[in-house]
Amino acid sequence: MKVITFGEVMLRLSPPGVERFIQTNSLTMHFGGTEANVAVSLAQLGLNTAHVTRFPNHALGRSAAGYLRRYGVGTQHVSYGDGRLGLYFLEIGSGSRASQIVYDRADSAFARISDNDVDWDAVLDGASWFHWTGITPALSQGAADCLLAGIKTANRLGVPVSGDIVYRSNLWQYGRTPQEIMPAITEGCTLVLGNKALFSELYGVVGSTFQEAGRAMMQRFPNIKYITDTKRNSVSASYNQLSAKVFDGNTVYKSRVYDIQPIIDRIGTGDAYMAGLIYGLLTFRDPQRAVEFGAAASALKHTIPGDVNLATVTEIETLEAGDSSGKLRR
Amino acid sequence: MKVITFGEVMLRLSPPGVERFIQTNSLTMHFGGTEANVAVSLAQLGLNTAHVTRFPNHALGRSAAGYLRRYGVGTQHVSYGDGRLGLYFLEIGSGSRASQIVYDRADSAFARISDNDVDWDAVLDGASWFHWTGITPALSQGAADCLLAGIKTANRLGVPVSGDIVYRSNLWQYGRTPQEIMPAITEGCTLVLGNKALFSELYGVVGSTFQEAGRAMMQRFPNIKYITDTKRNSVSASYNQLSAKVFDGNTVYKSRVYDIQPIIDRIGTGDAYMAGLIYGLLTFRDPQRAVEFGAAASALKHTIPGDVNLATVTEIETLEAGDSSGKLRR
Amino acid sequence: MKVITFGEVMLRLSPPGVERFIQTNSLTMHFGGTEANVAVSLAQLGLNTAHVTRFPNHALGRSAAGYLRRYGVGTQHVSYGDGRLGLYFLEIGSGSRASQIVYDRADSAFARISDNDVDWDAVLDGASWFHWTGITPALSQGAADCLLAGIKTANRLGVPVSGDIVYRSNLWQYGRTPQEIMPAITEGCTLVLGNKALFSELYGVVGSTFQEAGRAMMQRFPNIKYITDTKRNSVSASYNQLSAKVFDGNTVYKSRVYDIQPIIDRIGTGDAYMAGLIYGLLTFRDPQRAVEFGAAASALKHTIPGDVNLATVTEIETLEAGDSSGKLRR
Amino acid sequence: MKVITFGEVMLRLSPPGVERFIQTNSLTMHFGGTEANVAVSLAQLGLNTAHVTRFPNHALGRSAAGYLRRYGVGTQHVSYGDGRLGLYFLEIGSGSRASQIVYDRADSAFARISDNDVDWDAVLDGASWFHWTGITPALSQGAADCLLAGIKTANRLGVPVSGDIVYRSNLWQYGRTPQEIMPAITEGCTLVLGNKALFSELYGVVGSTFQEAGRAMMQRFPNIKYITDTKRNSVSASYNQLSAKVFDGNTVYKSRVYDIQPIIDRIGTGDAYMAGLIYGLLTFRDPQRAVEFGAAASALKHTIPGDVNLATVTEIETLEAGDSSGKLRR
Amino acid sequence: MKVITFGEVMLRLSPPGVERFIQTNSLTMHFGGTEANVAVSLAQLGLNTAHVTRFPNHALGRSAAGYLRRYGVGTQHVSYGDGRLGLYFLEIGSGSRASQIVYDRADSAFARISDNDVDWDAVLDGASWFHWTGITPALSQGAADCLLAGIKTANRLGVPVSGDIVYRSNLWQYGRTPQEIMPAITEGCTLVLGNKALFSELYGVVGSTFQEAGRAMMQRFPNIKYITDTKRNSVSASYNQLSAKVFDGNTVYKSRVYDIQPIIDRIGTGDAYMAGLIYGLLTFRDPQRAVEFGAAASALKHTIPGDVNLATVTEIETLEAGDSSGKLRR
Amino acid sequence: MKVITFGEVMLRLSPPGVERFIQTNSLTMHFGGTEANVAVSLAQLGLNTAHVTRFPNHALGRSAAGYLRRYGVGTQHVSYGDGRLGLYFLEIGSGSRASQIVYDRADSAFARISDNDVDWDAVLDGASWFHWTGITPALSQGAADCLLAGIKTANRLGVPVSGDIVYRSNLWQYGRTPQEIMPAITEGCTLVLGNKALFSELYGVVGSTFQEAGRAMMQRFPNIKYITDTKRNSVSASYNQLSAKVFDGNTVYKSRVYDIQPIIDRIGTGDAYMAGLIYGLLTFRDPQRAVEFGAAASALKHTIPGDVNLATVTEIETLEAGDSSGKLRR
Repeated sequence: MKVITFGEVMLRLSPPGVERFIQTNSLTMHFGGTEANVAVSLAQLGLNTAHVTRFPNHALGRSAAGYLRRYGVGTQHVSYGDGRLGLYFLEIGSGSRASQIVYDRADSAFARISDNDVDWDAVLDGASWFHWTGITPALSQGAADCLLAGIKTANRLGVPVSGDIVYRSNLWQYGRTPQEIMPAITEGCTLVLGNKALFSELYGVVGSTFQEAGRAMMQRFPNIKYITDTKRNSVSASYNQLSAKVFDGNTVYKSRVYDIQPIIDRIGTGDAYMAGLIYGLLTFRDPQRAVEFGAAASALKHTIPGDVNLATVTEIETLEAGDSSGKLRR
Repeated sequence: MKVITFGEVMLRLSPPGVERFIQTNSLTMHFGGTEANVAVSLAQLGLNTAHVTRFPNHALGRSAAGYLRRYGVGTQHVSYGDGRLGLYFLEIGSGSRASQIVYDRADSAFARISDNDVDWDAVLDGASWFHWTGITPALSQGAADCLLAGIKTANRLGVPVSGDIVYRSNLWQYGRTPQEIMPAITEGCTLVLGNKALFSELYGVVGSTFQEAGRAMMQRFPNIKYITDTKRNSVSASYNQLSAKVFDGNTVYKSRVYDIQPIIDRIGTGDAYMAGLIYGLLTFRDPQRAVEFGAAASALKHTIPGDVNLATVTEIETLEAGDSSGKLRR
Repeated sequence: MKVITFGEVMLRLSPPGVERFIQTNSLTMHFGGTEANVAVSLAQLGLNTAHVTRFPNHALGRSAAGYLRRYGVGTQHVSYGDGRLGLYFLEIGSGSRASQIVYDRADSAFARISDNDVDWDAVLDGASWFHWTGITPALSQGAADCLLAGIKTANRLGVPVSGDIVYRSNLWQYGRTPQEIMPAITEGCTLVLGNKALFSELYGVVGSTFQEAGRAMMQRFPNIKYITDTKRNSVSASYNQLSAKVFDGNTVYKSRVYDIQPIIDRIGTGDAYMAGLIYGLLTFRDPQRAVEFGAAASALKHTIPGDVNLATVTEIETLEAGDSSGKLRR
Repeated sequence: MKVITFGEVMLRLSPPGVERFIQTNSLTMHFGGTEANVAVSLAQLGLNTAHVTRFPNHALGRSAAGYLRRYGVGTQHVSYGDGRLGLYFLEIGSGSRASQIVYDRADSAFARISDNDVDWDAVLDGASWFHWTGITPALSQGAADCLLAGIKTANRLGVPVSGDIVYRSNLWQYGRTPQEIMPAITEGCTLVLGNKALFSELYGVVGSTFQEAGRAMMQRFPNIKYITDTKRNSVSASYNQLSAKVFDGNTVYKSRVYDIQPIIDRIGTGDAYMAGLIYGLLTFRDPQRAVEFGAAASALKHTIPGDVNLATVTEIETLEAGDSSGKLRR
Repeated sequence: MKVITFGEVMLRLSPPGVERFIQTNSLTMHFGGTEANVAVSLAQLGLNTAHVTRFPNHALGRSAAGYLRRYGVGTQHVSYGDGRLGLYFLEIGSGSRASQIVYDRADSAFARISDNDVDWDAVLDGASWFHWTGITPALSQGAADCLLAGIKTANRLGVPVSGDIVYRSNLWQYGRTPQEIMPAITEGCTLVLGNKALFSELYGVVGSTFQEAGRAMMQRFPNIKYITDTKRNSVSASYNQLSAKVFDGNTVYKSRVYDIQPIIDRIGTGDAYMAGLIYGLLTFRDPQRAVEFGAAASALKHTIPGDVNLATVTEIETLEAGDSSGKLRR
Repeated sequence: MKVITFGEVMLRLSPPGVERFIQTNSLTMHFGGTEANVAVSLAQLGLNTAHVTRFPNHALGRSAAGYLRRYGVGTQHVSYGDGRLGLYFLEIGSGSRASQIVYDRADSAFARISDNDVDWDAVLDGASWFHWTGITPALSQGAADCLLAGIKTANRLGVPVSGDIVYRSNLWQYGRTPQEIMPAITEGCTLVLGNKALFSELYGVVGSTFQEAGRAMMQRFPNIKYITDTKRNSVSASYNQLSAKVFDGNTVYKSRVYDIQPIIDRIGTGDAYMAGLIYGLLTFRDPQRAVEFGAAASALKHTIPGDVNLATVTEIETLEAGDSSGKLRR
């Protein structure tokens, strides 16, 4: 099974441990982006994956590609060109001190992508799944156009499509609103990650509960088979509670609730959920198992430094089965 | 508003993470001293500050000054001379293992300070506050004399004075007792941090409650307007509970109680409280808000490596307002 | 008092902090082995110790010996020869993510040990205690033979012998079963660490409770004076509960239960218990105090990076006395 | 004596040691910018300095200011606002492998500077020197305008002005050419660092030798009293030969030639020369000593990690006096 | 163009910088193996490559594969199974102190490879080149058999084959001599890296000069078109001189001699030459350019930490063209 | 053969690599002292050694002892008591930038040593050599007295004594001059390291050449059998030339001259020479071989981080035999 993801990959720079920006003298490098994070997670779970993006044609762009390959994601569809490498500075918090991010991603090589950079028919040939998020259409017209072309190709080839419709208002600087752009993109989706507030804000679709709002989304976008979301209770930067649910038009499948303490790295835990859910849907073809698998995957991601989930199927299944004892494995 | 602090700054050397002295092969450098810690905290809160001290005239002494400047504290009143740089070795504990300190501060350049090293009229000109602690008069006759001269100048110029009357019995090696030295110094104070036991031991001032003892202190030292103290419940080296209170002669203002877990670095958390309280008194002119701000500042300091509080006003106010969720700030 | 231990010492390689193998680019070095861990703990408690082992005759073998000496263990009885240095790769987990070990110890210099490598009369001359574990006879016929020779010499010289009869089924590759080998070795023991399941599996000795099984062991092996075991409740990789008990044929002495959070390094915590217990029996000659001291020693080990317990007598006694506050010691 | 410098400060990120971008997983942080480098060097030499720039109003911008203060440069004239922090990635080469830089400085907070951000009269009040470089007017119209305003104020106040007329063709993206912008800026200069090729390209001023070209520059720009340049022979990335010269309209003063091996960090060595020269002119008022001091300062900078010269007057004078023995100083 | 390489990949562990084993407390990780090093070099030069090997099926085996992918080498033909990960400990010397290696590669997963692990027809389909070295047949009968099968397949498919006939006498522990094994393997080679001494020892082929010995080799093994070798003058661990030559049956093509100082990492410099030569032969089809390109590639490798050459075509061509100035590239 | 050394051991703190004090944020730990350095070198050469000193009774004092043990030096004669751990800060230079040391050793636990702390008869029982340096009697009357007692015991027991009569004028603060103290100490020596200037300054012994001055020393101190010295030409901090000579009353034995480049760590290279010479005299009983061995040992020390020489006999003999090629040893 081959999964294709599409989106920007940024260089992430963070002080060692829980140092603050203002006191650090070195920065640890990771690379990440919400869609590529999904690809890495799936590659660690044993699926064949490839990420489609555009990097600057210099050593740092090539390093980003190397990072994806290291963790098993194919980079054969990456294009290289002008523009900079988007980056973000992450300070990891602790206890009552929040983590914080300084984004520095404007005018990236990815934001300059256009339809011509991707041969979607070749990319999606033989694919089992295609994943995107709401970050991509927020970056530039070219990115939005390229994404839409990808989704249409996927629909034509019968490749299921998932979208995390995350909305960041401080992006969307290129003159279009999400209300103009998102509906057409969402049209081709099989699986949508989102919540009532987003459905209302982006599409004017309302419902008083997750279930009702989900049903309304399915009416508006008939391709959608599943609506999903996670629920997080942030006790502190070091202690969260997390669960997830999936609605298939009939039933809401809920995962166990995970007590997560201590939190090592919270970034990418939503992407880890999405990857686990996709893996579950592709492998188990059982929404209950899929949502449990996704939630356990997300819980484990909190223990792993970096944006990407490096947990294995065995580890996730152990946790999903209720064993959170962390007993030494020899 | 300009705040002046006075006292020794030491080089702090600690093993990485929670390694023990006996196993480490490198030491992380910070600089700290209870009064300078207050200055750095206040500088991070946006106040104009300057620290008065005396450093050895070599590269490490200059490094200490550079450390203060880096975090926004003026070093224009620092003098340089003979003597060594005081230092302390800190091993950070975890859980049931206590942190431990090996002091190595004898005969420092600061301990050799004398009245001639500081032009207090110039230093305190235009100042809004002057802060000292009981460490300084414990180090040498020269330090005690210089401090007293500073307090008298502050009184003459109408600059409010705060004193943390901390008492360390293993200091006070120069032939005088705190009972001989402290009363004259305390005389000129507006705000005193201390508790019943200290009031009794240092000044023979007794009272059966914080309130009564505070009232007795105010009778003995009529300049005092506020008595303050913190209360800490040490569950383990990684988990403490903390609150603070201020007495203004009429009312005891109490802060919320903070559950602090995990503790990254406990050193300087009292100084962070003092800085927050001073900031609050200078800015809000409301003891309740001031004590809350101070306690929240202190709670946040526990999450920050090093002696000094690098939290911002916004972060402190967020916590003070009850949001300890540590949610990612983008 | 001199304590002799015998067994393999491995190079332990682990990613920094809680990084995963798959993402790390450097490895932190420690050395460890269950018996040598006991020796280091005892050396830190002030006893004279020496560890008997066999290292490869190259720089890494000499580094291993240097590691033992650094922490106070004598290496005058170490022999050097052919074979490799056994090693193990340890990934430290966190929360719901388990730690994991990849062993790489086959065909080590120690596994090639033979009777000729150790002059047991010289080694045990004047010794107060001899300690071994079930890892050693599992490695090779030579190691099993050499151990048996040591125990017989100890018996002849009247040196008390303790054995941790740990059983790892994936060792024992040299053609003999533990059932063939262990009884003769256990014969000479004064103190045995084990549980009902092990007694039954290794010796066919059964009993429905710890006490009954212990009594049956003492009937089968009349030299045994004490049976001991620890009990661990693994809530997560970061949070465990631990206690210990000792049976002397009449009474079961139980320690307090320790809540251990956070866990820095769980490896060697059983060895820390054994060392504490041996220290207690040798020093206090009181099983109750000994088991309490051992349990407190083990609890503290969880806070210390590496395989070996670097806690001092004072620290252990503080915790044993009920002070787990972790308050800063100056 | 107070020296004012003006220009962009970037975050510099480089792999540890001589690792390549493509293999590194962490980056060492420094801050630098050609003009600020001059300020830091002069502060280390004991002069009062302040750097004028504009930073983004976030933790990284404040870190940049902290870096300057740490090394003694005043940041009281820094303004904060929108835009990003310019940065550059530096890979340090070795032997036949060249160092390489990936710039990422477009649209920085500094490039958005305008006249309103700087009160030049206040900044230059009491100043002894003002320094700029050709990087600044290349960045934006606002930066060029602000610089010109500064120079005019300096001229009005009688503050000597030095300019390093470095020309980078890949900057100058804002629609103006250096030929349009540079002459007016150069007009107000007392000291110019440049060479024949630059004089011809930027101003159309020609001369067949350094002396003749310098004389022609002085005719075209009558304020100029000194023309200076360095000469570098790059044998390898680890071995360079360096000298400098100054022309005062009559005489060419030449420094000794320095054999520099090994090179630790070549960045900022030109700025170190400029700082040494300015220091020499201000202090010795003797072009020969000044050029020797500058060349020795530059030679020493090659041994120091980071953009800035942290050498002391004593160290520079020792080298200038011919002692390059590197003998241990106790 | 696709190049296939075949051989063991080991985990390389080395102390930071030039520390000695006996003093270090951490080890830097790289992965390397003479054939995989060639693959990585070629991938960095832009060729399509894949490495064929066998790894243990655990996290460290997967890390090794990730390392290859990071640098662009395909791992689609890697098989996973039992056995350990071969490793070697490298201490990097300096000046008169030699680097030293402690090998620990016995009984690796690769040594357990057999014909069944590789489908050579699939692997070599469409390949442009196949490369092996004398390390592989020295490890086990299975490795030797598998290699021979690969070479025969390559011959059948018309894929050129290169062999570095390096001979390590301390390998070859499985009961066969190189004289028994090597001739059949060499039979299928187009290009051989070796020298007179090796030709004589391994094949009994003699010649008084490189040229004569090469001609004799070509008579004995008629498939051979090129014989090549490098020449190294080791002045110290930090300074070497290097050149290379190729004989095509008629002419000896010699490269320039490179003065290499300082040496950062000497491991893999021969493999870098081989990769450069293969690249040159495939791309330029001109032995003189190829040998020059190979020698320049090897010279650059000495400046790069790790086993593999991360130099680019541009960097190599710059050095090959005579520019060893190491001038900063912006 | 057992060698006893006596003197202070300090904690050495140095910035990583060639960073300057003023820019560093961490310090690398080593321990060293001129006499202990000799002991470690000899232990690495395979001799039985023990170092006599006095440490503070805290974790850092115990760490110092652990450091010695790690490298094979016995610490059974170390006493523990009050006073601090002497320390020194070392900044390692490069090229034309000198290394520099800030000493911070006043009032150390060692300076407080007295005769009662050492049972010289027990310490020197069975010893083959005793070594001291001129640092020890410069520290305190107690240290001088204790040393003299040791030398007298050695003389009584027939143990040869070597003394490095190094003179540091900034020590000797306790009220006695070296002229008062040194003669009696030198009286008992067999081997003296020093030069004409020292002989004249300390003892008033003059001679126009090394040979003549040596002969005069032997007349004044009839126990002396050998006079030795090293000669260093400091080209830069990274490049030195070194040789040594020994005079036995008849002949001056000279070593080869070593070109040392690059220098990693120059500290302790004189002690490495002394250790090599002692080893040579004890082992070869041939002054020419001994001086060659000592000089080669010293040359190798320049390549090793830290104060102590970790070179092996084989490495030294290889270099002594003229092989400075630094060729990889497998």
